[in-house]
Amino acid sequence: MKTDIDHLMKEADLDALFVFGPASHNAPMTYFTGLAHLSVGFLLKIRDGKVIHFHNPMEREEAAATGLETKDIYADYDFPALLEQANRDSNMAQALLLEKALAEYKVHGRIGIYGKIEFGHWLRTIDFLRIKLPDVDILGEDMLRSVITQARMTKDESEIERIRAMGRITTAVVGDVAGFLTSHRVKDGYLVNREGEQLTIGNVKRKINLWLAMRGAENPKGSIFAVGRDAGIPHSTGTDSDPIPVGQTIVFDIYPCEAGGGYFYDFTRTWCLDHAPDDVLQIYEDVLEVYETVYSAIRPHKPCRDSQIQTCELFEAKGHPTVLSNPLTTEGYVHSLAHGIGLDVHEAPSFNIKFDDVLLPGSVITVEPGLYYPDRGLGVRIEDTAWMRPDGVLETLVEFPKDLILKMQGA
Amino acid sequence: MKTDIDHLMKEADLDALFVFGPASHNAPMTYFTGLAHLSVGFLLKIRDGKVIHFHNPMEREEAAATGLETKDIYADYDFPALLEQANRDSNMAQALLLEKALAEYKVHGRIGIYGKIEFGHWLRTIDFLRIKLPDVDILGEDMLRSVITQARMTKDESEIERIRAMGRITTAVVGDVAGFLTSHRVKDGYLVNREGEQLTIGNVKRKINLWLAMRGAENPKGSIFAVGRDAGIPHSTGTDSDPIPVGQTIVFDIYPCEAGGGYFYDFTRTWCLDHAPDDVLQIYEDVLEVYETVYSAIRPHKPCRDSQIQTCELFEAKGHPTVLSNPLTTEGYVHSLAHGIGLDVHEAPSFNIKFDDVLLPGSVITVEPGLYYPDRGLGVRIEDTAWMRPDGVLETLVEFPKDLILKMQGA
Repeated sequence: MKTDIDHLMKEADLDALFVFGPASHNAPMTYFTGLAHLSVGFLLKIRDGKVIHFHNPMEREEAAATGLETKDIYADYDFPALLEQANRDSNMAQALLLEKALAEYKVHGRIGIYGKIEFGHWLRTIDFLRIKLPDVDILGEDMLRSVITQARMTKDESEIERIRAMGRITTAVVGDVAGFLTSHRVKDGYLVNREGEQLTIGNVKRKINLWLAMRGAENPKGSIFAVGRDAGIPHSTGTDSDPIPVGQTIVFDIYPCEAGGGYFYDFTRTWCLDHAPDDVLQIYEDVLEVYETVYSAIRPHKPCRDSQIQTCELFEAKGHPTVLSNPLTTEGYVHSLAHGIGLDVHEAPSFNIKFDDVLLPGSVITVEPGLYYPDRGLGVRIEDTAWMRPDGVLETLVEFPKDLILKMQGA
Repeated sequence: MKTDIDHLMKEADLDALFVFGPASHNAPMTYFTGLAHLSVGFLLKIRDGKVIHFHNPMEREEAAATGLETKDIYADYDFPALLEQANRDSNMAQALLLEKALAEYKVHGRIGIYGKIEFGHWLRTIDFLRIKLPDVDILGEDMLRSVITQARMTKDESEIERIRAMGRITTAVVGDVAGFLTSHRVKDGYLVNREGEQLTIGNVKRKINLWLAMRGAENPKGSIFAVGRDAGIPHSTGTDSDPIPVGQTIVFDIYPCEAGGGYFYDFTRTWCLDHAPDDVLQIYEDVLEVYETVYSAIRPHKPCRDSQIQTCELFEAKGHPTVLSNPLTTEGYVHSLAHGIGLDVHEAPSFNIKFDDVLLPGSVITVEPGLYYPDRGLGVRIEDTAWMRPDGVLETLVEFPKDLILKMQGA
């Protein structure tokens, strides 16, 4: 949690953190500022000290609304003069500005840097700053282990409620989509509207974005609505022009966030419209059984990799290839069981078997086993977002039915 | 344009470019891949040579659909083995991967890097790579002058049509908002609905997002809908809980992009509902007159700063303070006349008087003079997006009326 930052900085031997970039769609900045319309700027967090946001003069009121200490890079630091001093080199001027900020707040030692920003541009700025301040150690941290990553890994109650609210919106839209699909007619094995025109994946995705916007959510990363062979490739998003068949797996994975770039939710259901072939029924049963077994075995402080290994072993016992015995397999179980979620859709902890993350109380994770057989034209994944509560119970934030078959309403 | 990249690389003495990160909301990557669901990965552009995208195995089909040469970081480079070799340090494993890619494609010399990504994490990777490859110069470029910035500064016909299509969506939504506002009743100087409840800025912003989504656009940066004193601060986005008065300036600035993170449009109108006070009428007339004068004076190959200086001089002749005589002023004309727009809402050319950009044929820019008097509770800005055509005509991509006063429909 945010209250852990000072001691995490001490453990990492960091004297300060710099966070660069806007306050939206930039998790480490949003973590400090909240959702705010700060399109440029940077932030300095001093260990056991304050957080200062440095803003553009046009955004002075938005900066003040964050409740942080603020500095105006024009009124307080005369950035135009720094640009002259830097011979109008904007990177050098930025380096001079950062140097002034560090001097004013008497920051020395080791500084960790953050921010989702244009890498090349900021690397040039930091390269200048490193030359100007050879005694200051300006360093990137391992994203999997960084101070802000670790702080964000556990959530307080207000963060949980924001993620849960996104879950309510997400599942409501999933319900809307189910209703929309099943209200269609079937012709030659595909959904058609009243005029007999085929419904396409593009039509459905447009509706998803619309219904999310109606409920105040944003969908910056799109959604997966993948049918048949596409469903057999976990990150295939589906082909917009494809029609929607009955009796084939549809993997519907939706991961919207709060409007303005806040907390995410992540959710997947696999559906067969009208009916499901026997082999799909069997695969679905395998995934659901593994979901329930691994979910109920997740415990606080358990190594995340143990859950991933258990998932692989359960699938292998049922005859499915997995990444445990063949890391390069593209059939069977081909990804991780889970990932943390919050201000980024993928964040710590990691369930990659190569890493040592443990599941801390207060974490929010997905649970998402799946099986994929692209050459057989099918894929199945079931995913919920769940909170490891302080009392050790893993709570699905929003419950939603796990039915494979959606009966057509006219049937 | 993209076809300029090889000679721009030669001018910058760069042998290759690395672009890191996803293909959405990451302009330098989207520039090469098009809109694609590539959530991770990187790209190598070799001077006078090919473009190779390196992808995650789960995204192999999405990568192939880009039409670029592709490499699978698992199947082709055995990333899990690199992670072992790196003692499970993910940054070191990334550095090993980049090293292998450079070796395979025989890249030496100077490499420019790009990508909107988590800075600290990638800095650590690049710091490792710099140690491993001391003879390779891995460098950030000045964002205002970089190869990809310069290439993107001029657009081809297909890019123009995509920006224009976003302009049609944007102005259609602006028309919807005007109709929505003026369909309300007025009570005690504020808009109310049929039940007599005050309409708020939050209500309007929700509608804006909904109507954009209905038309297939995305609004990742929100919009400005700022009234009264907020309108007097150029980047104030407005206060969601505020009601909407008649007879005060409303600055409505909207800058959506193609769903999935593509091309932007940028557009502002200032409205007074029902009527406008005399001082607002005068300020509006000043802005509109300056808009028309500077717009008609914009020529291809003209230094951008000349247009900014002309704007300042015109406003000062009318008695308004400007950033020309006082760079720190927060009253009068307080920003730049214009900016380039494309895959980023703000891109080259810059109209900052400190820089030497000239307006090349093929550029797309905003034109957006404004006047701001926060202590008088008013602000006015008029903005269109325009294309400097190859024939030297500056064409507003989508025309829209510039009326200040919106008459209430019931009046």
